[in-house]
Amino acid sequence: MPHYQKQLAVRTTAKSLRKVTTAVQAAVAESKIQAGMCHLFLRHTSASLTIQENADPDVLVDLENFFAKLVPEWEKYIHSAEGPDDMPAHIRTVLTNTSEQIPIANGRLVLGTWQGIYIWEHRNIPHQRELFIHIAGD
Amino acid sequence: MPHYQKQLAVRTTAKSLRKVTTAVQAAVAESKIQAGMCHLFLRHTSASLTIQENADPDVLVDLENFFAKLVPEWEKYIHSAEGPDDMPAHIRTVLTNTSEQIPIANGRLVLGTWQGIYIWEHRNIPHQRELFIHIAGD
Amino acid sequence: MPHYQKQLAVRTTAKSLRKVTTAVQAAVAESKIQAGMCHLFLRHTSASLTIQENADPDVLVDLENFFAKLVPEWEKYIHSAEGPDDMPAHIRTVLTNTSEQIPIANGRLVLGTWQGIYIWEHRNIPHQRELFIHIAGD
Repeated sequence: MPHYQKQLAVRTTAKSLRKVTTAVQAAVAESKIQAGMCHLFLRHTSASLTIQENADPDVLVDLENFFAKLVPEWEKYIHSAEGPDDMPAHIRTVLTNTSEQIPIANGRLVLGTWQGIYIWEHRNIPHQRELFIHIAGD
Repeated sequence: MPHYQKQLAVRTTAKSLRKVTTAVQAAVAESKIQAGMCHLFLRHTSASLTIQENADPDVLVDLENFFAKLVPEWEKYIHSAEGPDDMPAHIRTVLTNTSEQIPIANGRLVLGTWQGIYIWEHRNIPHQRELFIHIAGD
Repeated sequence: MPHYQKQLAVRTTAKSLRKVTTAVQAAVAESKIQAGMCHLFLRHTSASLTIQENADPDVLVDLENFFAKLVPEWEKYIHSAEGPDDMPAHIRTVLTNTSEQIPIANGRLVLGTWQGIYIWEHRNIPHQRELFIHIAGD
């Protein structure tokens, strides 16, 4: 079965969402696969993936604010040795996704008009995050 | 590789879960694929997918009530131009799923006895939602 | 297309996360697939899957504590006939995942250093849970 694999290193900024739609679409084009699936897998437990609104950047700020409030840093966690933002980052990752899967038709991701693909950094400092892309199809 | 793609237009009702198990199973039958994967992808950012209890409809009401309380409309959001239900709908989508993947064996989805597939409308008015189905296997 | 399917029966303990990374990796080895995708599907609506920190067991306790507080048993639910822990278990399942997908490269899951695969039992008593594994690739 034709398939394609690639790992991207993505630099994040603290507690925010970084759009990777263009990089993923470029990988789909490079794979030359016309109909199939694009699987994204983030190799981390304190950052995650989500597919969300790509137009109004305020949506991303509201998302970050909601999660900061839902999973507060000042809460008492047993796992605290790696800093007050680490356990909240694990919980936020559990509440979102480690992987995303997007079908491909006519050589393109079938994303809706308003859908963008994001890596969400949940830690308080920027990181280099590894995004593994597996594309399979015809 | 044998594969099958189809897009369904599904009419939703406000803030509730609509079961699509039968329609998805019909697509699996139409694909004639006996062993493989069924990938569902919802092309929206204010409605989502989930797999949940298919027997007692009260579960669906409790799910909706829990999310309405967890992500209140009366909260202050920066992104408010599209109405008080829009930003909560985005957050509720992030907390659930844009895609679901279900294995196929013997020509049928391997859903457990109590599992149903649902589209969850998070907006206050009904919408027509596009569900993309990709099935691959043998 | 080469593929492999297997169903594992996994015994859980009450309200806790059980690591299944080794069993899943064994299935990948048995499949002899070198490059592809490993799809995990849990056939239940009151237990779920997640990929999280595999080193410090305190992280798992904090995760359980967070979810117990976010989705309290003492809350009033309409669906209550199966016990006070049943509806919270459904909600916790919705907030986490029924399936996980992990790419395979060089015959191994591409998990990051700190990533483990877990079945999360959300009910108050141990269960036998069915984990369906579908692996496809070359």
